[in-house]
Amino acid sequence: MERKKIAIVGVGLIGGSLAIQLHEKKLSSRLIGVDNNPEHAEKAMQLELVDEIMSLDEAIAASDVVVLSIPVDNMVSLLPAVMDKIDRQMVVDLGSTKSLLVDVIKDHPKRGRFCATHPMWGTEYSGPAAAVKGAYENKAVIICNAAQTDPDVLGWVRHMFGKIGMRQLEMDAQAHDLHAAYVSHISHITSFALANTVLQKEKEENAIFELASAGFESTVRLAKSNPAMWVPIFLQNKVNILDVLNEHIEQLKKFRDCIRDDKTGELRTLIEDANKIRRIIK
Amino acid sequence: MERKKIAIVGVGLIGGSLAIQLHEKKLSSRLIGVDNNPEHAEKAMQLELVDEIMSLDEAIAASDVVVLSIPVDNMVSLLPAVMDKIDRQMVVDLGSTKSLLVDVIKDHPKRGRFCATHPMWGTEYSGPAAAVKGAYENKAVIICNAAQTDPDVLGWVRHMFGKIGMRQLEMDAQAHDLHAAYVSHISHITSFALANTVLQKEKEENAIFELASAGFESTVRLAKSNPAMWVPIFLQNKVNILDVLNEHIEQLKKFRDCIRDDKTGELRTLIEDANKIRRIIK
Repeated sequence: MERKKIAIVGVGLIGGSLAIQLHEKKLSSRLIGVDNNPEHAEKAMQLELVDEIMSLDEAIAASDVVVLSIPVDNMVSLLPAVMDKIDRQMVVDLGSTKSLLVDVIKDHPKRGRFCATHPMWGTEYSGPAAAVKGAYENKAVIICNAAQTDPDVLGWVRHMFGKIGMRQLEMDAQAHDLHAAYVSHISHITSFALANTVLQKEKEENAIFELASAGFESTVRLAKSNPAMWVPIFLQNKVNILDVLNEHIEQLKKFRDCIRDDKTGELRTLIEDANKIRRIIK
Repeated sequence: MERKKIAIVGVGLIGGSLAIQLHEKKLSSRLIGVDNNPEHAEKAMQLELVDEIMSLDEAIAASDVVVLSIPVDNMVSLLPAVMDKIDRQMVVDLGSTKSLLVDVIKDHPKRGRFCATHPMWGTEYSGPAAAVKGAYENKAVIICNAAQTDPDVLGWVRHMFGKIGMRQLEMDAQAHDLHAAYVSHISHITSFALANTVLQKEKEENAIFELASAGFESTVRLAKSNPAMWVPIFLQNKVNILDVLNEHIEQLKKFRDCIRDDKTGELRTLIEDANKIRRIIK
């Protein structure tokens, strides 16, 4: 398939890492960066993530494909404005919530030019300097409400994710938000809360530094994640997140009660139940 | 320093990984395995973690050093019996809790031959097949109540951990158990509870399998850990663990309430507070 002129709106961790892939897999003939943070724009140029920086309007006019990789609150306000400005271009978003976004755009006359996607990859870092080579490969990507996207747009988006080496799944936006709450959003909340717990209780920061094991680092690393990205995700997906978060608090109380009351057998059963995650994760 | 005949009581993940190091760093002239699980004993021989398998009594008689790497409930009952049987041998334990253990042994006539240690390393796997080369290197090890240990024993233990490449810290057993609750034990509880939460709420196991991101795997991987090891740790360290676990539940409720009530600014502050873990972890 012919290479495209591709605008990346938001050249941070997600957009920057995609830009590297678009070039490497020969999907792009030109990469245009758009970023409302001038330092990020400059850094993206310096790291050669993109070929040039333009304003949003210039970038839309100059591109075949517009990729939106910005926080999901900005996404909801920016997508309709972008759709108003395009002609035959394709627009793809990479955000972590989908229901509100597809709802906002559902009656737009150019709805078919838009494809809603969520590549299931990220790290706890952010900004263009956090972009990495080889991201997304062998990970899952969810394409939402595919029937509302024009066949040529869907075809190119599938071609792109296929070349990058992603496993493609389709589901509607509601199902996406439900599953994303379970397998991604809740992990970030538990990690943020664990960091706050330990920072609150462990008055000797030096002790954390000296003693923290690989296990602690593993459970707490997501706590380094960027609030500008995660606050709007939690609020947009609040119904699903509150449901899973309330369940999580109940599960923690079960552990608390078993430990407090020396219920050895029940504590063992709770752990054996948790061990069943082995069936699923590696 | 002269190489020692060393008995490893419990040739699983912890003892087996230490056995590999003892050989590699030329600390042992002979490695004797003791395990009440005949399959583990056989596997330890097959993997050449140890040179031979003996009964506990034979192993004590044949050794200069006895290393105890067994669940902490068994540790508390076995250590006094081992101390009764030794003559000039040294005894070292590698368990994850320390207060009860040093208390149980504090008036033993041979107390000085014992050194209480906790190398801060482990994985979510268990048994001799989980033993890995290069374990413990560049990790911390805590030596507890060192003043109660004979200088020659303490000297050899420090020599051993030094050769393995561990950072050595000394603290009393109470302080150890407090810090261990914060930087190790609580992570395991949050991970077990997260696994149970997701297994409970996400009825489509296939969705977890397909969509689970690196972030989810990172926060949930400790949920694969062995109940035989962790139940007694949680119960022996219950006072500290209940304290930190109650705090953790409160921290999660703060996130829940902010999300429920759309408190954007407060949610952002909670996440920015959590981001301070960056100062400490990498």
